[in-house]
Amino acid sequence: APAPAATPSPAGGKAFKMKGRIQADAGIVSAPSSLEDQGLGFSSEMRRIRLGAEGELSPQFSYKLEVELSDNAVDLVDTFLTFEQGRWQVRVGNQNAFWSLDELTGDTSGSVMERAAFTDAFAFERRLGLGVQYTRGPLIAQLGVFTDDITALANSSDGTSGGDENNSYSVDGRLVLNPRLGAVQLHLGGSAHWRRLGRLADASIRYRQRPFLHTTNTRLIGTPALKVEHETMYGLELAAIAGRWHGAGEYYALTADRVGASPLTFRGAYAELGYFLTRGDSRGYKGGIFTNNAPARPLGEGGPGSIQVNLRYDWLDLNDRDVRGGTQDAYIAGLIWTPIRNLRFHLDYALLRYTGATALPSGDDSYDANVIGTRFELDF
Amino acid sequence: APAPAATPSPAGGKAFKMKGRIQADAGIVSAPSSLEDQGLGFSSEMRRIRLGAEGELSPQFSYKLEVELSDNAVDLVDTFLTFEQGRWQVRVGNQNAFWSLDELTGDTSGSVMERAAFTDAFAFERRLGLGVQYTRGPLIAQLGVFTDDITALANSSDGTSGGDENNSYSVDGRLVLNPRLGAVQLHLGGSAHWRRLGRLADASIRYRQRPFLHTTNTRLIGTPALKVEHETMYGLELAAIAGRWHGAGEYYALTADRVGASPLTFRGAYAELGYFLTRGDSRGYKGGIFTNNAPARPLGEGGPGSIQVNLRYDWLDLNDRDVRGGTQDAYIAGLIWTPIRNLRFHLDYALLRYTGATALPSGDDSYDANVIGTRFELDF
Amino acid sequence: APAPAATPSPAGGKAFKMKGRIQADAGIVSAPSSLEDQGLGFSSEMRRIRLGAEGELSPQFSYKLEVELSDNAVDLVDTFLTFEQGRWQVRVGNQNAFWSLDELTGDTSGSVMERAAFTDAFAFERRLGLGVQYTRGPLIAQLGVFTDDITALANSSDGTSGGDENNSYSVDGRLVLNPRLGAVQLHLGGSAHWRRLGRLADASIRYRQRPFLHTTNTRLIGTPALKVEHETMYGLELAAIAGRWHGAGEYYALTADRVGASPLTFRGAYAELGYFLTRGDSRGYKGGIFTNNAPARPLGEGGPGSIQVNLRYDWLDLNDRDVRGGTQDAYIAGLIWTPIRNLRFHLDYALLRYTGATALPSGDDSYDANVIGTRFELDF
Repeated sequence: APAPAATPSPAGGKAFKMKGRIQADAGIVSAPSSLEDQGLGFSSEMRRIRLGAEGELSPQFSYKLEVELSDNAVDLVDTFLTFEQGRWQVRVGNQNAFWSLDELTGDTSGSVMERAAFTDAFAFERRLGLGVQYTRGPLIAQLGVFTDDITALANSSDGTSGGDENNSYSVDGRLVLNPRLGAVQLHLGGSAHWRRLGRLADASIRYRQRPFLHTTNTRLIGTPALKVEHETMYGLELAAIAGRWHGAGEYYALTADRVGASPLTFRGAYAELGYFLTRGDSRGYKGGIFTNNAPARPLGEGGPGSIQVNLRYDWLDLNDRDVRGGTQDAYIAGLIWTPIRNLRFHLDYALLRYTGATALPSGDDSYDANVIGTRFELDF
Repeated sequence: APAPAATPSPAGGKAFKMKGRIQADAGIVSAPSSLEDQGLGFSSEMRRIRLGAEGELSPQFSYKLEVELSDNAVDLVDTFLTFEQGRWQVRVGNQNAFWSLDELTGDTSGSVMERAAFTDAFAFERRLGLGVQYTRGPLIAQLGVFTDDITALANSSDGTSGGDENNSYSVDGRLVLNPRLGAVQLHLGGSAHWRRLGRLADASIRYRQRPFLHTTNTRLIGTPALKVEHETMYGLELAAIAGRWHGAGEYYALTADRVGASPLTFRGAYAELGYFLTRGDSRGYKGGIFTNNAPARPLGEGGPGSIQVNLRYDWLDLNDRDVRGGTQDAYIAGLIWTPIRNLRFHLDYALLRYTGATALPSGDDSYDANVIGTRFELDF
Repeated sequence: APAPAATPSPAGGKAFKMKGRIQADAGIVSAPSSLEDQGLGFSSEMRRIRLGAEGELSPQFSYKLEVELSDNAVDLVDTFLTFEQGRWQVRVGNQNAFWSLDELTGDTSGSVMERAAFTDAFAFERRLGLGVQYTRGPLIAQLGVFTDDITALANSSDGTSGGDENNSYSVDGRLVLNPRLGAVQLHLGGSAHWRRLGRLADASIRYRQRPFLHTTNTRLIGTPALKVEHETMYGLELAAIAGRWHGAGEYYALTADRVGASPLTFRGAYAELGYFLTRGDSRGYKGGIFTNNAPARPLGEGGPGSIQVNLRYDWLDLNDRDVRGGTQDAYIAGLIWTPIRNLRFHLDYALLRYTGATALPSGDDSYDANVIGTRFELDF
């Protein structure tokens, strides 16, 4: 989490802080050249730009409002009202629907540049809704009801994509147990999600994923457009932090009830191991998600900052029954340099192994892609 | 008005304040099911998101800059330079053109979730221009010249919607008398507006309105597209605040001079009565508009916050001569809970009675709709 | 530069400042009426609206993030991370690619409302990239590598305009010598630019320019769409400030290597002379660009603010070989009133003389246009 740069206001000591984020990427996706896809190769972009504020209205009520510029569109990210009383927290507005550990962990606190393949493939996103959280010792219980993302809801067109015709809703819950055993921070979690797509069942959905980097818009695997009535998801989370080491793993399964066809189940998972090369540094953890700790010896204060190496295996399987969306096995090695608090540089390499991907002219649909990605990111 | 959370700057005590607003809505519009309009029924949205700043450049010059995200578009709201000297105020930039009391009153200070039906039907909006205000005791006189809203002006397309082809302008004035008679705050006002549409007369206008809630994009009443050369509007305002009670009423008439056809006059009005159930609370008033007072006994300081009940009758008549746009009579009951300053929750019910509305399959165009709306809104 | 309104944060005295800008224009472009172009004549617009922040993360690392609303689109302007160590500065992110003095000088510090005609015609803009600067005494050396503007990079469409298909890059350098000779501030500069358009060579480019004002979208001169592989540019800069006087001049030449056709060279230049009518005022200069000095005797403190008169001759030649894009000679007289720091009012007159412009019905393509422009602009 960013350093607390709150400015004391004269109106009774209420905290207020302006917030922002810059992420810029450049990278290369090298796939078989016979694909003749000009969206592969070198590309660069501003990954995310955010501007917003958070503050307190009273000891019980606080808010956050953050606007994001990405993909040439302006969108809302965390924008909600929070009420806190003892062990209870109620949040209403645009927020994450208690997804996986990897999705809930901030995008400037991740171990590699992009999240697990299943998080995009299964369309984890912020939605308008009401979420309740209960915390007691090492237990966090979360439950909420959500409609859809606010961009979809604000769509003024007629027909299936019209925001006012959107009557989808979901019930989402997550349970976390995070005891501290001596010097080890443990994390055990599970989440369950049920969504009724309602009017959206008249439109269609594609489950698909980019080849790791966001700078490209190519998807080498993905299902055809499917008409889906309900989605049911289950996820399991496991993580541990011990000094300079950390490990994490998750498994997610999505079952899509099709209109007039048998249901499909798609699955994803990842497992990772990370280590800080710099003494005194460790991965942060708070409130059921990973966070960033400030470097023990920052650049400019006699140290190099922190340097972390992460290895991740990431798997996505979009095949089930008659639908052959393909599979992706990613072997990712990531290096993160954090010279000072709130500033990070990424250098990632990924080997992607595909089956059932976009076919080459030869008809072959099982091949590899090699990816190199770089990013700088800062929060204020 | 929000609490003054200005941060003192080192550069000579000039006030500066970051501003923001969150409004999130959910509601139901229940109309005859034979309409088969999927835009009715349940819907939800982020109604308004604002981010901006206001401050002083010198004792005479101040500014405000506020960006709004609504309807999936980014727009400017109040964005202007203000010069003040004695009783005179000159404002240049994007601003409200001295519309009705209901329009000028901030959208987080209203008595019900949405403004009077005529305010949207007659397209009250902020426009780029120059406004002058003179204040002396209980008198406020306002006069200005305006072009168009800045989104229209920035449109880079060719043809009638091109911003550079837009040569419309208007002259708008308003007069307010607001004496305080003992414990009673009185408000008497009137406004007059004349607009030459110029190049816009080659395009066309529809006068129409939603069934109270903004979450739906359906309009059950509205005129066909009309080619209009000039618009002339008159409005009358009357309001009073006495302790926990307040009352308000307005009448507005718009005359549209058509190209090659006789002029049309459309009319709207509302009357409302409001009462605070909580002792010590009253509606705020300042500078010719309603504002919010902080609750006398806020939540968290031994009280429940303030609770206000409002009843409003709202009428819109879009019938004249050969044009039968329809009529809407709305009976609205609203409950506002303000637990603490700058935070409000709405629960509204509206019965809408239509004539000349979108016809049912039976041919019937006079029917009722029932509306339930909820909102939370906060300012910082 | 705006007054330092930084608010000290509790987190170790790191500077943080919210930033914003408002520019609103109104003006008239009077060209031969037989053109029948409704985009000429009177027009008005919000020229630029900016909102952002800048601050320091550490003594070495600082950032700036600024979002701009103009032309109905949201775009990034300066958004980068800066590292400074001794005489070296490294900047990564969205930034100006070491263009001409007129382009690099802030748009609220210019001598007339719009920059030299060649700056738009040759598409000077901010791009994503890495720039290095070395400063030693009166020498500034700048060199960088850039891809494209972030809006182009984020375009998610397929084909030549797709952001992920965009593999253009450029190398840009600039050298400035700015000795102070007694009371005279001298500025000598030169820049060189080479760009490989890559995939963009499959699309096409038009070099063109508006008739001075931005409120109109009409371009009276411009080349047809050209397929260009590389662009090479050279620029020369000369300027001096002496008390209330200043002078400046630049020359820029762009050579476009066409696909399958001989290269084209287009040229532009301007020369200007400015004088403050108010005693004690002078044009600011810092870091190789013009800046704004605060008025010596501001309005409200016994003075009128500062009043500056500027005369500029501005030339653009888009003719070469088989391409006859036309020529524009502009004679511009500008008046700037700066009542207080950070606030300016413009009144500009321009006589534009064209050859090879959009032809009149008579076939004549050499004619004049008269332009009057007004603006208010403020920074915070």
